[in-house]
Amino acid sequence: MSGGWRNRVSRLMDLIQENELSAVLIRSEANIFYFTGYRGPGYLLIPLNGDPKLYVYPLDFELAKMYVRGGVEVEELNMTARIEKIVEELPNEVKSRLGFDVMSAEDYLKISALVGYESLKPASEIIWKLRMIKDQSEIKNIERACDIASKTMDLASEMLEDGVMESEVKAEILEEMYKLGADGAAFDIIVASGSRSSMPHGAPGSRVMKEGDVVVVDLGAIFEGYCSDMTRTFYIGKDPPEEIVKIYEMVLEAKKLAEESVKPWTLSSALYDKVYDRFATRGYADYFIHGLGHGVGIEIHEPPRISKAGKEMIQENMVITIEPGIYLPGKFGIRLEDTLLVEKDGVRMLTSAPYTLTPY
Amino acid sequence: MSGGWRNRVSRLMDLIQENELSAVLIRSEANIFYFTGYRGPGYLLIPLNGDPKLYVYPLDFELAKMYVRGGVEVEELNMTARIEKIVEELPNEVKSRLGFDVMSAEDYLKISALVGYESLKPASEIIWKLRMIKDQSEIKNIERACDIASKTMDLASEMLEDGVMESEVKAEILEEMYKLGADGAAFDIIVASGSRSSMPHGAPGSRVMKEGDVVVVDLGAIFEGYCSDMTRTFYIGKDPPEEIVKIYEMVLEAKKLAEESVKPWTLSSALYDKVYDRFATRGYADYFIHGLGHGVGIEIHEPPRISKAGKEMIQENMVITIEPGIYLPGKFGIRLEDTLLVEKDGVRMLTSAPYTLTPY
Repeated sequence: MSGGWRNRVSRLMDLIQENELSAVLIRSEANIFYFTGYRGPGYLLIPLNGDPKLYVYPLDFELAKMYVRGGVEVEELNMTARIEKIVEELPNEVKSRLGFDVMSAEDYLKISALVGYESLKPASEIIWKLRMIKDQSEIKNIERACDIASKTMDLASEMLEDGVMESEVKAEILEEMYKLGADGAAFDIIVASGSRSSMPHGAPGSRVMKEGDVVVVDLGAIFEGYCSDMTRTFYIGKDPPEEIVKIYEMVLEAKKLAEESVKPWTLSSALYDKVYDRFATRGYADYFIHGLGHGVGIEIHEPPRISKAGKEMIQENMVITIEPGIYLPGKFGIRLEDTLLVEKDGVRMLTSAPYTLTPY
Repeated sequence: MSGGWRNRVSRLMDLIQENELSAVLIRSEANIFYFTGYRGPGYLLIPLNGDPKLYVYPLDFELAKMYVRGGVEVEELNMTARIEKIVEELPNEVKSRLGFDVMSAEDYLKISALVGYESLKPASEIIWKLRMIKDQSEIKNIERACDIASKTMDLASEMLEDGVMESEVKAEILEEMYKLGADGAAFDIIVASGSRSSMPHGAPGSRVMKEGDVVVVDLGAIFEGYCSDMTRTFYIGKDPPEEIVKIYEMVLEAKKLAEESVKPWTLSSALYDKVYDRFATRGYADYFIHGLGHGVGIEIHEPPRISKAGKEMIQENMVITIEPGIYLPGKFGIRLEDTLLVEKDGVRMLTSAPYTLTPY
């Protein structure tokens, strides 16, 4: 395995040992990508002693061999080599304390019937311990994904006007992302106008934007397998009503407050609480209906969870979003979000675009 | 609940009774959409006696209330109302034989610790029994999704030429899908040229197409939540080499053979075997490395699986794909695919585009 990858696998082996496991069976495509460079369905077995082995279906065999970093052996799954059979045939010392990352209840029932319920141990957290802290090559890819996102936000801003369909803006953003070298969008881009803006996840379908609309634009790109995530909220027309301006400023102020508070060794829920309390003193806490942010990396939503229930400590080289939002049901919603890198003494913003209600 | 939806829930209740369950806890977003009209994260509880209840997170509450068909009660999940707690507090007669559709091993361990391992029963198959057979409103949506796909295949065909980037074609296809009223693409569109065409799932990144390339274009649209899926393979240039022509014709012939064989009460694996055997007599069986097709509906890959291991009987009003392909590692791949509706005496093609190696 070349540098970064060998290092990731050997750090996982240390954690396997610390946690008294004998091996980890990895199913998540993102985890497989992290440890091997191949992204697709399959199973990756990393034993405490010995070499990692990647099992893929025949139709992905060529792809996997092309993308795995040297040192990872690739084998084919098939009718006679199903994963439960492969696990059953592992040496006892490998399957005796087998960690797993994600597993369906069905696979769990099948495999545990063969190796014993005692032997299967949830182990996703030890992988997240590694993945939460980004290395330099990961940060470089995320920076590129963030640059692309910021540029497409500029384009989105230019396009917002009375008479334009939400889906036209989405399509243009996607095309621009491809042109800028992205692998694609990190998630289904949200362009939610009018009362649709009051729903954080947007809503299916498309709508023609009109003067007087609030429009939430939430987008992210993927570059070399790494994501970015950012949101701006705009107003179509010249003079936004006072209520909209007031809430926009409140959200922006809360965002800055949170960003100034991000430092290594801060508890993630403490960041959330700060913003929640600020909204509460203004009487808007009930309209802040999601978490404050999340980690970003190979997946668009990763630990740490920056929410009421967030239990992780913020650490140097985590990449996270800060995204406070206020949603008035049936009226409008305002959310502002950036992706940022945690550094020794604070944060470095990785996405950027003006904070202005009027499209810029 | 309005017509179709009430009917779906009441048919599920019949199956719950037949299978001696007391309720089904539904987690799959596609299943929740099927029974409620709301698509997003959450849990849907359908008891044998009583009304369905949908549990969603606060940020999706407004969206869920807007989209659920009348009769489904919506409640908020939160820190004190987690799903395991909700299940624990269900009346004994509801939680005593609780079916589930998809569940993570983690949720399974948590919930089964509370209600007892004996009480939790895998039940995804009874939902697939319903979902595999499409009703008229579903068929209409799939037809629209197929029309959109066919039109964008025409566009793709026009764009393929020496010097064009794969990603440009993908971006144009997406934009056209939106213009034609699609909710979006049904999956990450594949435009795989040159030796990349020999990998059925394509490969990350983008490549400039060149004269002499084989190009596989695999695309699908979503219309009102329903998918379509089709593939064509092209050659860039005037005179495709004999080997490419020969394999193209063999794949096309195999596809027609399979389509003529699709009838209600055919075993899905028998369709696969027919194509496999045909390729085998020509010496190409080893290069047919995936299933022959799959069901299409709310999800892009659904039962029935039309493969060696396929155990479902083909039935009237199933919507399936037929997609034989031959892949010569490092050289090129050829796949042809359409979405089709199973009717009383055969099939009706829902996607359409010429079968020609030269872009049309």
